[in-house]
Amino acid sequence: MDNLGIVFLAELVGTAMLVLLGCGVVANVALAKTKGNNGGFLMVNFGWGLAVFAGVTVSYASGAQLNPAVTLGLVANGATEFGMGVPVNVVSVLTYIAAQLIGAIIGAVFCWVAYKQHFDAEPVAANKLGVFSTGPAIRSYGWNLVTEIIGTFVLVFVVIGFGGGRQGDGGLAALGALPVALLVIGIGASLGGPTGYAINPARDLGPRLAHAFLPIQGKGGSDWSYSWVPVVGPIIGGVLAGFAAIPLLPLIG
Amino acid sequence: MDNLGIVFLAELVGTAMLVLLGCGVVANVALAKTKGNNGGFLMVNFGWGLAVFAGVTVSYASGAQLNPAVTLGLVANGATEFGMGVPVNVVSVLTYIAAQLIGAIIGAVFCWVAYKQHFDAEPVAANKLGVFSTGPAIRSYGWNLVTEIIGTFVLVFVVIGFGGGRQGDGGLAALGALPVALLVIGIGASLGGPTGYAINPARDLGPRLAHAFLPIQGKGGSDWSYSWVPVVGPIIGGVLAGFAAIPLLPLIG
Amino acid sequence: MDNLGIVFLAELVGTAMLVLLGCGVVANVALAKTKGNNGGFLMVNFGWGLAVFAGVTVSYASGAQLNPAVTLGLVANGATEFGMGVPVNVVSVLTYIAAQLIGAIIGAVFCWVAYKQHFDAEPVAANKLGVFSTGPAIRSYGWNLVTEIIGTFVLVFVVIGFGGGRQGDGGLAALGALPVALLVIGIGASLGGPTGYAINPARDLGPRLAHAFLPIQGKGGSDWSYSWVPVVGPIIGGVLAGFAAIPLLPLIG
Amino acid sequence: MDNLGIVFLAELVGTAMLVLLGCGVVANVALAKTKGNNGGFLMVNFGWGLAVFAGVTVSYASGAQLNPAVTLGLVANGATEFGMGVPVNVVSVLTYIAAQLIGAIIGAVFCWVAYKQHFDAEPVAANKLGVFSTGPAIRSYGWNLVTEIIGTFVLVFVVIGFGGGRQGDGGLAALGALPVALLVIGIGASLGGPTGYAINPARDLGPRLAHAFLPIQGKGGSDWSYSWVPVVGPIIGGVLAGFAAIPLLPLIG
Repeated sequence: MDNLGIVFLAELVGTAMLVLLGCGVVANVALAKTKGNNGGFLMVNFGWGLAVFAGVTVSYASGAQLNPAVTLGLVANGATEFGMGVPVNVVSVLTYIAAQLIGAIIGAVFCWVAYKQHFDAEPVAANKLGVFSTGPAIRSYGWNLVTEIIGTFVLVFVVIGFGGGRQGDGGLAALGALPVALLVIGIGASLGGPTGYAINPARDLGPRLAHAFLPIQGKGGSDWSYSWVPVVGPIIGGVLAGFAAIPLLPLIG
Repeated sequence: MDNLGIVFLAELVGTAMLVLLGCGVVANVALAKTKGNNGGFLMVNFGWGLAVFAGVTVSYASGAQLNPAVTLGLVANGATEFGMGVPVNVVSVLTYIAAQLIGAIIGAVFCWVAYKQHFDAEPVAANKLGVFSTGPAIRSYGWNLVTEIIGTFVLVFVVIGFGGGRQGDGGLAALGALPVALLVIGIGASLGGPTGYAINPARDLGPRLAHAFLPIQGKGGSDWSYSWVPVVGPIIGGVLAGFAAIPLLPLIG
Repeated sequence: MDNLGIVFLAELVGTAMLVLLGCGVVANVALAKTKGNNGGFLMVNFGWGLAVFAGVTVSYASGAQLNPAVTLGLVANGATEFGMGVPVNVVSVLTYIAAQLIGAIIGAVFCWVAYKQHFDAEPVAANKLGVFSTGPAIRSYGWNLVTEIIGTFVLVFVVIGFGGGRQGDGGLAALGALPVALLVIGIGASLGGPTGYAINPARDLGPRLAHAFLPIQGKGGSDWSYSWVPVVGPIIGGVLAGFAAIPLLPLIG
Repeated sequence: MDNLGIVFLAELVGTAMLVLLGCGVVANVALAKTKGNNGGFLMVNFGWGLAVFAGVTVSYASGAQLNPAVTLGLVANGATEFGMGVPVNVVSVLTYIAAQLIGAIIGAVFCWVAYKQHFDAEPVAANKLGVFSTGPAIRSYGWNLVTEIIGTFVLVFVVIGFGGGRQGDGGLAALGALPVALLVIGIGASLGGPTGYAINPARDLGPRLAHAFLPIQGKGGSDWSYSWVPVVGPIIGGVLAGFAAIPLLPLIG
C-alpha cells in the first residue's frame, strides 16, 4: 500500500473509532433502558473525550486529523506535508476528508448495531437522531454557527498552533492522544451547552447520513435543515484557527 | 520460580486486583446503605477503569493480559512470546487463562468480604448478583452477544494493534496502565449501556462462580442461562481484533 | 517582536483561553436551556481545570502565569526572570498583569457570544453574573477573604515551590499543564465551596468588567461591593505562598 | 537543617496539604449552603485523590509517605532507608509518623477555617464530624476493620510492591503523584462504600483530634469509640502488604 493509502486507512479507522465511542456515550445516556441512562452531561463529555483518545491512538500514521476542520486548518496554516510525508494538495486533502466521512458513517452504523434494542425501545424520535448528530438547544442558525465556530477555533488553534503541527505533518497526534482528549472534554463541558459541540463536520454529517439510510424503527427526520451548521461552522472555525496560528509563531519558538 | 510460574502469579494477582476494585465499585453504587449508593454510571466507569489501572500496575511481569480475550487475541494475531519470554503454546495459553480465572474468583471473594454487611442489608437478589457478574439491560442473547463482541473488539484492537503488542510479548501493559484505564473508562461509558461491558470472560465467569459457591444471604440464582454470553462474546471480539490488527501493520510502522 | 511583547501576547492569549472555557462551563451549568444544565459542581471543577490546561498549553512562552497572584508570588519568592529571559521589574510585572486582565476580558466576551441565546433565555440576573465572576455562598467579607487566601496559597505554593519555578522563570508551565489542571480541579472541588474559588484576580475582575460594559439583557448589577475580595484575597495568598516557599528550599533540593 | 529535619518538614507539609484538600471536599459536599453541596461520591473520590496528588507533589523530599500505614508497610517490607538517605530506625519511623499526625491536624484546622461559616450554618453535628474523620455506614467494628484492612492493603501493596519502593527509599513518591492519585480515586470509588476509606491512621486521627479541640459550634462528640478502627485497620493492612510484597519480588524483576 502506498502512503496515501495508509493515511486513508488510518483516518478511516480512527474516525470510525471516534464516532463509535462518541455516539455510543450519547446512546447510553439518551436511549431508553440503558445502564447509563440519564448519566449526565459530564459523562457525555468524558465519553467523547475518550473516544478521541481511542481514535488518535489508532491513527498516528496519518497524524490523526480525524476532522475536516483540522485538515483545512492545517492547509490554512500553510502545511506542506500531512502524515507519512504525504504532500498537501487537492488529492490528499480530499483523501483525508473522504476517509473521515466514510469512517464516521461506519462508526455510526456499529453504534446503532451495539444499541439496536435500545433504539427499538426508545419512543422519542429526537433522542434517536441525537445519538447520531448534534442539534441546537435553542435553534438559531446564526448564533448556533457562531458557537460552533468558537468551539472549533479553540480545538484547532490549540492543536495546530501548539502541537508542533505548524510544520504541517501533524493533526491531533502532534499534541498527543491524552492532551487532545482533555482538550475535547474541556471544550465539551465549556462550549457544548448551546449546540452539543459538533466541532467536526465528519462527526456530524457522517452519522446523519447513517441515520438517513439505516432502517431505524420510528426514526423520524434527519433534520437536514440544520445539518449545514455543524459542517460550515467547524470549517470556518478551523480555517480561522489555522490563519490565527501563523502570527503566533514567536510564542512557540 | 520459573518464568511460567512468575507470569501465572502476576496474572493471578493482577486479575484479583482488577476484580476486587471493579466489583467493588458496583457494590458501592448498587448495594444498600453504602456511602456511594446511587453514585451513577460514570462512577462505575471510573471505578472499573482504575481497577484496570491497578491490575496492570501489579502485573507488568506477565504483560498484564488479565483477560482471556486479550490472550486469545494475541494468539490470533500471531504472537510467539508472552511476558518474560514465555513461548506461546497450549500450556502457556491455558496457564494465563487459568491464572486470570482463579484471580477473578479471589478478587470477587474479597469484594464480598469488604462489603459483607451491605450484601446482608441489600434486599434485592439481582443487585447482589450484579456486583459479581454482568447482565443485559434488555435480554436478547443474540444482540447482547453482538454488543459484547463490539466492545471487546475495541479493547483488544487498540491494545494489540497499537500497544506494540504485535510482537507478541505484550498485553495491556504494552499500551500502558493509564492509556488502558482511559480506554476502559471510554468503552464502559460508550458501549456499556446494553450489557454492562463484561468484555472479559474471566471478569464475568470468575465472580459468577464465586457468587454460586459463596454463602451470600438471599442471593438468588447466578443466571447461568446468560453466563455464556459474556464468555463467548468477548472471545469472539478478541480473536476478531487479533486478526483485524494483522493487515493494519502499515499503520503502525 | 521583542521578548516582552511575546510574553504579553502569550499571557493574553492564555488567559483569554482560560476564561473562555472557564466561564463557559459555568454558563453551561447555570444558564437556562443549555445541554449541560444542572451538570453539577464536579463538572464545573473539570471545566475550570481543563480551561487551565488549555490556557497553559498556549502560553508556554511566557511561563503561563495567567494569574496576577502567581506573578506577584514569583516576585515575593525572589524571582529574577520571567519567561523568555524577561527580567523581573516593575515594567514586566505590570506587562504580565495587564495582559492577564485584558485576556480575561476578551475571554469573557467570547463566552458571552457563544452563549448569547442562553443569556437571553435566563431569567435570573444573578445566574448571569455568576457566569462571569465569583460570589460568596454566605456573604462575609472577612471569611470570604480567608477562604480565597487559603485556596490561592495552595495553588501558588505548589506551583512556585515545587514546579521548579523558584529560579524565577516559571509560572504554571513550570509544573506542567496536566499537573496544574489536576491541582486546579482539586482546589475547586475541595476549597471552592464557600466562594467559588476565584484564586485569580484577573479571572474575576476581567469578566466582571466585561459584565459591566456588555449589553447583556436583564443583567442586573455587577456586585462591585464584593469585587475586591477575589482580587485582594488571591494577591495575599499568592504573596504569602511566595514567601513560604523560600525556607522550603531544602525540600526541593 | 539535617536530613531528618527535612523529611519531617516534608511529611508535615505534605500531609497538611493532603488533609486540607481531602477534608475540604467532604466539607463542600456535606455542609450546608456550599456551592458543591450534594456533589456526589465521585466528587469526593476525585477530591481525595487530587489531595493526595498535591500532597505527594510537595513532599518528594521525604518520599511522600504521608501515612503511617505506608511507613510501617515499608518497615515490614524490610526497608533500610527512607527519603534523603535517612536510615530506618525507631527514631526515623517515629519522626515520620509524628510529622504525618501533626500535619494532618494542621490541615484539618485550615479546612475548618476555610469552611468556618458553613460549619456554623450546618445543623447536623454528624455532618461536621464527617468532614474531619471517617465513620462506618453500618457500624460493626469487626467488619469495618476488615474493610479498612483490605483497602489499605491495596494501597500499600501497589505502592510498595510496584513503585520501586522495595529498596526502602520510597513511599507514595516512588509510584509517582499521578498514579497514586488514580489509585486513591479507585480505592475510594471501589472500597470506600462501607467505611469511607480512611486507609491512613494520620488522616483520620489527626482531624479527629482537631475536631475534639477546635471550638466548632454544635459539634457533638468525636466518636472516639470508633476511632481505633481507622487506626488499627490501616496499620494491619499496611504491614500485611509490606510482608506480601516480599515474595512477589520476581514479578518486579
